[in-house]
Amino acid sequence: MPAQLATSLEMAAAPRAPDFLDAVARLRALLADDLDAVNAQILSRMESPVQLIPDLAGHLVKAGGKRIRPMLTLATARAFAFTGDDHIKLAAAVELIHGATLLHDDVVDGSSLRRGARTANVIWGNKESVLVGDFVFSRAFELMVAAGNLRVLQVLSRASSVIAEGEVLQLTTQKNIDTKFDTYIDVVEAKTAALFAGAAHAGAIISGANARAEQALADYGRYFGVAYQLIDDALDYAGFDSDLGKNVGDDFREGKMTLPVVYAVARARDEEKSFWRRVIAEGRQTDADFEQAVALMNRDDAIADTVACARKYADRALNELENAPDGDFKDALSNLVKTSLSRIA
Amino acid sequence: MPAQLATSLEMAAAPRAPDFLDAVARLRALLADDLDAVNAQILSRMESPVQLIPDLAGHLVKAGGKRIRPMLTLATARAFAFTGDDHIKLAAAVELIHGATLLHDDVVDGSSLRRGARTANVIWGNKESVLVGDFVFSRAFELMVAAGNLRVLQVLSRASSVIAEGEVLQLTTQKNIDTKFDTYIDVVEAKTAALFAGAAHAGAIISGANARAEQALADYGRYFGVAYQLIDDALDYAGFDSDLGKNVGDDFREGKMTLPVVYAVARARDEEKSFWRRVIAEGRQTDADFEQAVALMNRDDAIADTVACARKYADRALNELENAPDGDFKDALSNLVKTSLSRIA
Repeated sequence: MPAQLATSLEMAAAPRAPDFLDAVARLRALLADDLDAVNAQILSRMESPVQLIPDLAGHLVKAGGKRIRPMLTLATARAFAFTGDDHIKLAAAVELIHGATLLHDDVVDGSSLRRGARTANVIWGNKESVLVGDFVFSRAFELMVAAGNLRVLQVLSRASSVIAEGEVLQLTTQKNIDTKFDTYIDVVEAKTAALFAGAAHAGAIISGANARAEQALADYGRYFGVAYQLIDDALDYAGFDSDLGKNVGDDFREGKMTLPVVYAVARARDEEKSFWRRVIAEGRQTDADFEQAVALMNRDDAIADTVACARKYADRALNELENAPDGDFKDALSNLVKTSLSRIA
Repeated sequence: MPAQLATSLEMAAAPRAPDFLDAVARLRALLADDLDAVNAQILSRMESPVQLIPDLAGHLVKAGGKRIRPMLTLATARAFAFTGDDHIKLAAAVELIHGATLLHDDVVDGSSLRRGARTANVIWGNKESVLVGDFVFSRAFELMVAAGNLRVLQVLSRASSVIAEGEVLQLTTQKNIDTKFDTYIDVVEAKTAALFAGAAHAGAIISGANARAEQALADYGRYFGVAYQLIDDALDYAGFDSDLGKNVGDDFREGKMTLPVVYAVARARDEEKSFWRRVIAEGRQTDADFEQAVALMNRDDAIADTVACARKYADRALNELENAPDGDFKDALSNLVKTSLSRIA
């Protein structure tokens, strides 16, 4: 085992900072009643006489996830002292948009594990996941419409288009080792950050925040989303299955050009270029290749610099958050961003 | 060749009534400017820096189709003397919802031919079709939101959920020879008729039609949609590739429980049950089985009764249309329904 890999594994094996999960738990406690209402809303919207729908969608919902996106909507609304109940519908809609994209992503990526459970496409099949994904997505729109705010509808329907565009862009960069930093950031801004932004933005809009605060909260969500995705990308090379809830190395096996790979390829010595071409562009991988990839990344600081890039975005998010009113919700939103970097030791 | 099949083929080979295509052409002529605007709207909404999107979506758009659904929105609006321009956005949105479902349907069905052209999943791949389908669907919602009418948003977002639910229901009936008439009508009402209904309903809503007329036009669309789908189902057994724009026998090969099969199975003699079980439930088919299926259908009036059922729905549609103001558009909408039965000789 190369020395760098050993070091990396030891770092990761050390007790990992539980800060982020603590921050999530604290926000969840602040929003307990709202989150119960969101979960009830989600479950009721997945009801259907077509039994496959509650079965398959229920599987996704039960597998849970951290509910970060809907909490952004709820906490933003609460930070601006919102007192109605449309934030429940919108938070549920945001989570359903996310759920629909997960169903389709898992089909497109051929994934078998998500949030520690077998994926719907493995249990029920690809066709089923595609069609139930469409149902979940449509129900998300029905919920948004039920909230009845046209500006929010603009923001979230736009976010949905941008997400899909980002997924397509990512597909076209897959296995393309010429993918550059800017293109990858475009992918992340679209496939992940757009919904974080829309989620926070929606909360600010329905609360009647002023234009400047509204935009700041959207930007808070966007920057946080980029940081969050970059840490996810780093964890795919430096984490553990149990933290990720999916298989470490999935991105690698799928030939995804995430930031660690973009950095590693850019910094590879001439004789290493053929390694990256073989494992990413040609998709011909042996069992030892993943360790070799991680070793090269560690040597060239590809993972460390991915985390450093995430930190920059996290700082920008915190900066924008200054425009929210002081209080528990602002503190919790701030803490979420600060600790998100601790997901990787 | 069994006598019944020969008769059926001779009937189909006789000059087929061009009435329906004439009726489509006449409606298209009435709506020429509107349809140009709809096409421009569709093309502009498919623009993206991610080249795969305009390529793939453009292929679908260029392959055309008859544009019946958007024409329902346009003609309904015009029938009620609508003078704004939101009907263009809504008609384009309706066609995009339809396009997105086609992209996903072709993946789910593994289809290779649509509107006489190779399908996107065959040219670009299944992953690409799933993700671009999501993009097209999201753009449809953006367009609807841009039209800014919350009631229309309710109707069309509800229609989208119902369509997806119908697609899932159809998937669960596939290869299930116990599928009954009522269940199949549920499938058709959802997967096809809901969007016909939503399209016409949207046109009536934005025109400020009174509540009774609004509901009547929605029902007109719904009944017409059922009739249209039933004729499509019959054509899969009694038509020609060139009429269908897809391969005759596709439904049969996929084990779809459409109405002709539901009737044929119900009327099969005991010794024929094993035939239907083998070809539909078990999906084990030889080249001669399709002809045998058509022969049994003809002997037992399964195709004729499917057409008769379509006629009942067409009559209901015409009855509802009486609630629209008299004029060219009402005449054209009426003619569309009357002639739709002539698609099958």
